[in-house]
Amino acid sequence: MTTIKDIARVAGVSVTTVSRALNGYSDVSEKTRAKVFRIAKELNYSPNTLARGLVMNKSKTFGLLVSGLNESSPKDNITFDILSGINKFVGECGYDLVLFSTNSTKQREKTYTQLCRERRVDGVIIQGIRTDDPYLKEVVESDIPCVLIDIPLTSSTVGYVTTDNVLGAKKAVKHLIQLGHRNIGFINGHEFAFVSQERLKGYEEALTEANIEINREWIGNGEFSEEAAEIQAIRLLEAHPEITAIFSASDLMALGVIKAARSLGIKVPDNLSIIGFDDIVLASYVTPSLTTIGQDTFQIGYEAAQLLLSILENRAESHIVTMETKLKVRESTKHLNE
Amino acid sequence: MTTIKDIARVAGVSVTTVSRALNGYSDVSEKTRAKVFRIAKELNYSPNTLARGLVMNKSKTFGLLVSGLNESSPKDNITFDILSGINKFVGECGYDLVLFSTNSTKQREKTYTQLCRERRVDGVIIQGIRTDDPYLKEVVESDIPCVLIDIPLTSSTVGYVTTDNVLGAKKAVKHLIQLGHRNIGFINGHEFAFVSQERLKGYEEALTEANIEINREWIGNGEFSEEAAEIQAIRLLEAHPEITAIFSASDLMALGVIKAARSLGIKVPDNLSIIGFDDIVLASYVTPSLTTIGQDTFQIGYEAAQLLLSILENRAESHIVTMETKLKVRESTKHLNE
Repeated sequence: MTTIKDIARVAGVSVTTVSRALNGYSDVSEKTRAKVFRIAKELNYSPNTLARGLVMNKSKTFGLLVSGLNESSPKDNITFDILSGINKFVGECGYDLVLFSTNSTKQREKTYTQLCRERRVDGVIIQGIRTDDPYLKEVVESDIPCVLIDIPLTSSTVGYVTTDNVLGAKKAVKHLIQLGHRNIGFINGHEFAFVSQERLKGYEEALTEANIEINREWIGNGEFSEEAAEIQAIRLLEAHPEITAIFSASDLMALGVIKAARSLGIKVPDNLSIIGFDDIVLASYVTPSLTTIGQDTFQIGYEAAQLLLSILENRAESHIVTMETKLKVRESTKHLNE
Repeated sequence: MTTIKDIARVAGVSVTTVSRALNGYSDVSEKTRAKVFRIAKELNYSPNTLARGLVMNKSKTFGLLVSGLNESSPKDNITFDILSGINKFVGECGYDLVLFSTNSTKQREKTYTQLCRERRVDGVIIQGIRTDDPYLKEVVESDIPCVLIDIPLTSSTVGYVTTDNVLGAKKAVKHLIQLGHRNIGFINGHEFAFVSQERLKGYEEALTEANIEINREWIGNGEFSEEAAEIQAIRLLEAHPEITAIFSASDLMALGVIKAARSLGIKVPDNLSIIGFDDIVLASYVTPSLTTIGQDTFQIGYEAAQLLLSILENRAESHIVTMETKLKVRESTKHLNE
């Protein structure tokens, strides 16, 4: 394997000069730089990215701190989509991606800053952590550039990408209202997610704009889990048989709501309309297929990586990217009196 | 941030001694080592993994070369499961995971060895590449430890994890034979996958053992794609109305076969039994739910990372791990005369 020592020997210059030429320092003459590059190419030199990272203080690596990479998550392809979107962008710009899993107990022992410093990542994308996660405070206080997905924090080094969740939730509830429903239940995610707060706001705004009173007893906490949502939906539907439609803050929870209706002998959509959020792959395959609010999770990942690079290169015009949603009408919602 | 210089100053030893103590060299006395570690802890020292990688020639990083991390793959949760399984193991043993995507045109310009040398990965796991992929020859010839998923190559530094695909395919076809089917079509994946060759072998063995003649005209190439499988199934079912059951070498292709049957007005399972392979998440959610041969893709990822570490540490008893399959009977298969 060719080293910079070999290049220095052939070029008749010092190792330092070769290093500085290869790393783009301005104190090397153009003539010397050209010579060094020509010889490096002739000798088939493969730069050691780690060593270069130490010299340049850049590793051309993004870290991804993600909580959803585990055995129970394949039903919900959101994490995979985001990862694929990030992967596409980093591939295009020649970066690598290092995964930090917050599932790992070993990594949990380290602070966020330790994690990033040890691996010398240039910046980090954070997905799927709760707003009460101890990492979060550190992220904002650290000087390591960071892009958050679905957590609205910004600083000179922090940005975020999110979906317009208020508007998305409004679209969902308005769709139900347009179908004649007025007794609309809501299965939300847990309170430690920004998206839950936003989707609740959208639910409330849509009802208020339609002059429908908000009934707190029709709102359940499904914890973003299919099982918890099923239990909550059974509780809601048993206690409040007047409910004719349910908005679920995620498709996975909507699957739990469908199960709940089935176990109570309530027909979907004949006796209960259900609308989800996300448009996961399963949404169009379940029976009845699920009406939902689609968000472009692949593109969220792509945009997050793009934003991180622009923050790193000090050329981000805004540190906030907001994505649109789309109503996808399928079989699980129906007009109240048909 | 504490450096080894700070530790050296406080401990009253040289920087070299601190470095050698921290990196486990044997020429440092136990007393000095203990002192260095105590002071490092007191000063809240966070070792720079990159610098340590250069010294130790180990980066505690696995590379993952994967082809299925793209926009079109979330339907098929195999890549995600394998990634999650690998992620679990590397988390447990304190390694990091760097993603090399073979989708990226930039990375394609580099050779496999360049890719690994530049990122100083200790070893690589390769998933989803075709047997005609130019990387493959390099992998085996390189001295970088490597574990392949579903490609049966071994050397002193190469191992592989795969499912018992011959037996799995036999289970599928035997299930159809036990249901009274004799005219059994087969939609296989493309020929550049080892698993296709193995599943074909299993299909043939099951028929031969049951004294059923193999009819080459009943075999189609679905390219592991839902769309290609649909086209092939339409062709097969139109040309050979005598076919009463189809074994599909993947669940994704089986979804295409179900679509084909639907578009031809053939009822599943009443007029056509369909069995898949993989047990992806969708298999149990589609209507009719899909009978299939389940493989534990999460565990395949976990085992691959475990095998790679044992090869790296020169303690692998075998370089081959073979996983079992499980028949999952659902709604898409039915007795011929019922």
